[in-house]
This record gives sequence, structure tokens and C-alpha cells, in this order.
Amino acid sequence: MATLPQSIQNLIDEFSKLPGVGAKTAARLTFYLLTKSPDDIKKFGAAVSGLKENLVFCSACYNIAESDPCKICSDVSREKSLLCVAEEPLDIIALEKTDYRGRYHVLGGVISPIDSIGPENLRIRELIDRLQKDTISELIMATDPSLEGEATSTYIVGEIENLKKNGKINKNLKITRIARGLPVGGDLEYADEVTLNRAMEGRREI
Amino acid sequence: MATLPQSIQNLIDEFSKLPGVGAKTAARLTFYLLTKSPDDIKKFGAAVSGLKENLVFCSACYNIAESDPCKICSDVSREKSLLCVAEEPLDIIALEKTDYRGRYHVLGGVISPIDSIGPENLRIRELIDRLQKDTISELIMATDPSLEGEATSTYIVGEIENLKKNGKINKNLKITRIARGLPVGGDLEYADEVTLNRAMEGRREI
Repeated sequence: MATLPQSIQNLIDEFSKLPGVGAKTAARLTFYLLTKSPDDIKKFGAAVSGLKENLVFCSACYNIAESDPCKICSDVSREKSLLCVAEEPLDIIALEKTDYRGRYHVLGGVISPIDSIGPENLRIRELIDRLQKDTISELIMATDPSLEGEATSTYIVGEIENLKKNGKINKNLKITRIARGLPVGGDLEYADEVTLNRAMEGRREI
Repeated sequence: MATLPQSIQNLIDEFSKLPGVGAKTAARLTFYLLTKSPDDIKKFGAAVSGLKENLVFCSACYNIAESDPCKICSDVSREKSLLCVAEEPLDIIALEKTDYRGRYHVLGGVISPIDSIGPENLRIRELIDRLQKDTISELIMATDPSLEGEATSTYIVGEIENLKKNGKINKNLKITRIARGLPVGGDLEYADEVTLNRAMEGRREI
């Protein structure tokens, strides 16, 4: 079998490392780029190489940002008393598309014993510090509705409840969880049992 | 809505330009790269930027290569009398995984009036030149089994047959088409009519 030119093989190898990109997709993407102008290719290359330039973690919310504190944390028009806990920076993008205008706290993952990620590897300590220092009236748990996301949320809520009992966190702090239910546009008939149960439990008067 | 850091948005935009990559996949790939080390990111960036460096089109077969003539064309152990016609360099990679050890001719696309690609935009003239100059005993048509691929193959075969009649191409040149039939591992029950018809037509004695 003839070998591919080195530069093509290099890029196929690099694309193959991305999640969800197999050898065939990697080759297809590489050969697609070969049809583009050198300028377009350089632009893409520069965008990759420059990805981490000027990026920092916000020391308040631990989101990826260009400045510290980040734009969201330094925005005075935002509701200071609302704090939303999410797993990853990518979740913040999704949440920012909603009408929510409070602040965030990025955990940096979920508790996952199989990947040796325990509570100490997440920004839980930092979250509790914020709850003790700042005046937060409502904490919104927005971890994924997955096994790990639910477990992480349950763990954090447990810790906070303990601290509330000891008087170390304001007893009036309200803790909420974003609703689980049928996705809009979905089909009740095909909904799984767990989701449907959550939808029934979360029913609201109309 | 808070905006993303510029460098992240840049890379999401670049990924979104790739075929089959939507905005969400682009964001997922970008945030995946953010978890990688700066060295890994630079390596990827360099692979993209360096893609077209040292690449040329082989002047014999028009495949993308590092040298002219390419490794395949300059390989003396290959059967000189076999020539296989394919649409794109990507097809050569697939064909090289077979036991075929002849040479190739890359057309650079297919006849597609909807994209204003006519025969004159493909390397058909160059193919005919090769057939007139070199001693080819068999020409294997390996364009895609699609409407455009079949039409392109039919067009080329028609041209060659004309030239054979006029004595401008060796009358003994055998022209073959790679077999259409049921893919190995496939299920007869789900095969489409056209494929099944081709499989019946192409049946062989066992």
C-alpha cells in the first residue's frame, strides 16, 4: 500500500484524535481542506494554534474567559443574588441562551469514580466559599440530568445542607434544580420512563 | 447573552466551515481542544497550517503527492499495463487497500452540469494522451457507483471507443468497470432494487 504524503497523514492523525472523528471522517476533512485556498488553511491553522492565547480562568466563577474576572462576573447589571452551578464552560454557553441573568459557578466536571474524579477535584470548596462570602439568595443546580450529574448535584446539596445546619451558610439560601421533563417538540409516546416520571412529578398548575 | 472569548469563537467558526460539522459539534471540538496541552494544540495547528507544504500534483496521474512523479507512478514493481481511473485522491487511498497493484489516473471530479463541471474540467484529455502514449492493456473504470460517477464513466468509455474505431487508441485495450453488487456483510433483504439488479447481472459461476 502506498503511503500518503506526510503532511496529509499528519493532519488525518490530528483530526482522528478529536472526539467522534474516526479515520474516514479525518481523511474526508483533510481532503476537503486540500481543496481550500492556502489563505483559508492558514487562517484555520492560526485559529487552532491561537486557541489558548489570552485565555484565563475567571477566579470567581472558573469559566474560561479573556479577562479575570470574566465579562459575566464583572457585569453589574446581572442579578448578584442568583448563582447557577454548571459542569463545564460549554454549559454556560447553552445557559446564556436562556433568560437567566444571574451568575455562574463552573465545577469543572462531575464526580466520576470510574475516572478517579472525586469532589476534591471539582470547584466545590470554591463554591462553598462563595456561598459563605457573598449574599446569595438562590442556588440553581444545573448539572447534566445524567447519573453523574445528578449524583454530583446531590452530593453538593448534601454538603450545603450540613453547613446550613451548622450555621456556616445562610439558612435562608434556597436551592433549586433545573426541571427534568419532556423536551419541547418531543413526543410523549417515545419518552423514557424516568423522564416521564420526572415530568409527572414536576407538573405545574396551569 | 455574553459573548465567547474571541479565540474560542474563531476556532468554532473555522470548524463550522468543515463539511458535516454544525455549530454544536464545532463548539464541542473546540472545548475538547481547550482541555489539551498547549503542545498538543500547537501540533494540531502546525499540521493544519503545513497541510499544503511540499504537496504537488503528480504530472502523470494527477494524484496529490510529495514528489513528481508520485511514489505510485515511480514504483517500478507496479504493473505498468493496468490503469485505474478514479474521481479523487481520496479514492486512491481506498483502492490502495485492495490487492490492485497497477497505476491510477485521477480525474479530479465528475461531470456535473449542476455545478458547471463539464468533461473539459476533468483530466480526460490527459487520460486519452496516456492511453495513446503508454502501453495499457486494461483500463479499469473506478468512478463512484453514483449517477454522476456512472455518467462520467459512460462518457469516457464512449470517447475511447470512438478513438479505438479511428485507430487512434490501441483496439485491444480492454475497458472494465469495478463490480456493482451487494456490499460484503450487507443484508439482501434491505438491498435496493438497482443494487440487487446489478448483483444479478454481475453473477459469476462458482
